[in-house]
Amino acid sequence: MNQSRFNANILDNDPQRRARILPILEAALDAVDPAEAMLGVVRRQGDVLRVREFSYDLNDYRSIYVVGFGKAATPMASAVRVLLGNRLSGGVLATKYGHGPTHPDDLQPIDLLQAGHPVPDEAGLDAARQIVDVLRKAGAQDLIFCLVSGGGSALLTLPAEGISLADLQATTQALLGCGATIHEINAVRKHLSQVKGGQLARLAAPATLVSLLVSDVVGSSLDVIASGPTVPDGSTWADAWAVINSYDIEEVLPEAVRSRLQAGLNGMLEDTPKAGDSVFARCQTVIIADNAIAAGAAAEKATESGFNAAVLSTFVEGEAKEVAKIAVALGREVIAHGRPLPAPACLIFGGETTVTIRGGGKGGRNQELALAASLFLNPLPERERLVLVSLASDGTDGPTDSAGGIADGRTVERGQRLGLSAADHLANNDSYPYLQEVGDLLLTGPTRTNVNDLIFVFVFE
Amino acid sequence: MNQSRFNANILDNDPQRRARILPILEAALDAVDPAEAMLGVVRRQGDVLRVREFSYDLNDYRSIYVVGFGKAATPMASAVRVLLGNRLSGGVLATKYGHGPTHPDDLQPIDLLQAGHPVPDEAGLDAARQIVDVLRKAGAQDLIFCLVSGGGSALLTLPAEGISLADLQATTQALLGCGATIHEINAVRKHLSQVKGGQLARLAAPATLVSLLVSDVVGSSLDVIASGPTVPDGSTWADAWAVINSYDIEEVLPEAVRSRLQAGLNGMLEDTPKAGDSVFARCQTVIIADNAIAAGAAAEKATESGFNAAVLSTFVEGEAKEVAKIAVALGREVIAHGRPLPAPACLIFGGETTVTIRGGGKGGRNQELALAASLFLNPLPERERLVLVSLASDGTDGPTDSAGGIADGRTVERGQRLGLSAADHLANNDSYPYLQEVGDLLLTGPTRTNVNDLIFVFVFE
Repeated sequence: MNQSRFNANILDNDPQRRARILPILEAALDAVDPAEAMLGVVRRQGDVLRVREFSYDLNDYRSIYVVGFGKAATPMASAVRVLLGNRLSGGVLATKYGHGPTHPDDLQPIDLLQAGHPVPDEAGLDAARQIVDVLRKAGAQDLIFCLVSGGGSALLTLPAEGISLADLQATTQALLGCGATIHEINAVRKHLSQVKGGQLARLAAPATLVSLLVSDVVGSSLDVIASGPTVPDGSTWADAWAVINSYDIEEVLPEAVRSRLQAGLNGMLEDTPKAGDSVFARCQTVIIADNAIAAGAAAEKATESGFNAAVLSTFVEGEAKEVAKIAVALGREVIAHGRPLPAPACLIFGGETTVTIRGGGKGGRNQELALAASLFLNPLPERERLVLVSLASDGTDGPTDSAGGIADGRTVERGQRLGLSAADHLANNDSYPYLQEVGDLLLTGPTRTNVNDLIFVFVFE
Repeated sequence: MNQSRFNANILDNDPQRRARILPILEAALDAVDPAEAMLGVVRRQGDVLRVREFSYDLNDYRSIYVVGFGKAATPMASAVRVLLGNRLSGGVLATKYGHGPTHPDDLQPIDLLQAGHPVPDEAGLDAARQIVDVLRKAGAQDLIFCLVSGGGSALLTLPAEGISLADLQATTQALLGCGATIHEINAVRKHLSQVKGGQLARLAAPATLVSLLVSDVVGSSLDVIASGPTVPDGSTWADAWAVINSYDIEEVLPEAVRSRLQAGLNGMLEDTPKAGDSVFARCQTVIIADNAIAAGAAAEKATESGFNAAVLSTFVEGEAKEVAKIAVALGREVIAHGRPLPAPACLIFGGETTVTIRGGGKGGRNQELALAASLFLNPLPERERLVLVSLASDGTDGPTDSAGGIADGRTVERGQRLGLSAADHLANNDSYPYLQEVGDLLLTGPTRTNVNDLIFVFVFE
């Protein structure tokens, strides 16, 4: 393990236990570091690259290109560049403003373009066009690495012929406004794009396409990550139209969108490629880092450190406070009945919670979860045995520079001694200053990855 | 297993799976049936009664009395009466109106009195006085069985000298109004009572006192169940006064309450008995039925039925919808990663959720949880593999005659076919009619026990 990436003062409270806990968090973050994860999954032996169950002999290919889009495009591409060395022919990356390499030439011969996120802009359209150009010119003898990470959907925005960025945004607004689910929204948007829903794979065919993904989607559905540009699309023109119909929003859609969806429904436009389509014949898609991998690495490290460890779910969503309540309830069961595991135990959850904002304070969902947990822990007779951690894998929880917080049976009292009320801070969604003052705020700086959040319940003996 | 206690039409949907599920629910309810649980814990062999690790030779005692308070007093006393036969000398029970035996003589020679719940009334005061009389007259050569169940705190109300029922109610209102925790409220109330906080044990001493408890308290803390009349009290006069002080409610308390608490603080009144006090020398206290026992019995039956089963927590509290979301998230992990157990799996939670009422419909927390779960299941690709059950152990969920509901991947569609919207019903807290119409409403009738709620996540292969 490297020098700890956490703020040193986090060890001021309860130092012995925290010294056991931090390496477990560290292991989770290490496992999903984009460059490390890439080097773990893609291995070069001589002129052969192994990617899980497949091997690629570099001598079989004329040119090898790298394209990529997302906030982790830079570290992912750096790692691939190291692996390919002088066999790398070129390529194009689209990343968010400020997410480029330290030195402009660090990615040569790959071009890096920076663009708008989360709202796509003209720079993003331009980057997407350049990526599409690379794929179009690649032929059957070429190999393409496609690097996908969080933000990839916005950073690879290329509307279908005749649709403008403004049309897309108006459509998304209409869908969000009527209460459509994320699956329904995606069914429509994939049919308004040149690249989403497997269409990037169609553009790349007949070249060989290896897609490597860092997932920030809860559950890591391949067709949801960055809108599934390289995998079969389960939705059809009929599905897209059914969404418009069922929410009765035809009238509020831009004319260009309406007529495209109608034309598709009438069989006048090609549909997105489906499972079994030949465009996927030479495609491999691998998740190199996601929440489940981070949680699994944490569980492994916790086991090494003497905890009975289990990952209970990596699909957790819901209000942060409510998730905190249930996490504490699970810890209490360990103490009362040794279920589902006996103490010392480390129970791990992953996912992404939400916070219903009611106050004007500073915080993020992980900090809020930790602060809420501290209030649930405080009145318990067994509070001395429980420690709860909520960690944003990207190191930036909400609009703050914190990665989350640690709550234990003394977090509330630490505030009381300083004249701070944990309950008042929680009511004002003001977790950051509270946790900072009491020494329970986690800081890592940006981790350059994002696989959502991890929640840990530690039960000590 | 007896004839199923569930409504037959619950098998109309998904009959094969439900036929596997219902016996598991049945096993949970059977394990906490007050009479069955009593006969499981208290065993008679000749003239010796065995209660867990202790034995009582009935020939050692002059008289044997039964006292009891709570909604399950009748079935608990019936079972003890069978065990003791003609060795039973008499006793007094306090139960809620309508919770008496079928025939008035069924409990002879025990007197059964019915009283008000949840708001104590004069009949309850009278019953408490009669119970206290039994304990006072019992001596060192007597054996007393004390049967405690849900509602026991209200049904054994006996204010301290000089305090009226109205004083108690005003104090409780003030404590609830200022946001005091349940622990804080109890610290005050125990010091305003003649029986709570171990004082019943003091009244019974030097007789031998065997307390048998059916717990409807999440976590089953002995000092919280019915306000802990037979176990040491952890709170002091100073604690009680500190609560009054910290919420600054001295001015709104009735004069009699204020002066009693002041007198106690000044050392002029005896405190509630503490751990190690000699009044507990001949006391045994055993929980014969609670949520953890029901959940454990369900897990055992599920294992017999071929499921990989685990109890994850019996301390669950929180908003029903949010608990549903997390329960579904746990089921998804089983499918995606075989964690914490591989399919077929049965994950079990216990506790008591709450519902923030926003609509004017008919339902209860278990029905609301099931309906919410159906909406979370509906869009999932893996929805066919998941079934969620939420069950009120008393058979009466909220102000309804339902025991809860079953949600599966088709619950939402079943409503759609009938022109019903699950989302609209949920928004209106109107789970009962929806679940009833689609055939997913569980009915058992009153079970005559209460150990809170059980939530099951079934993951099929």
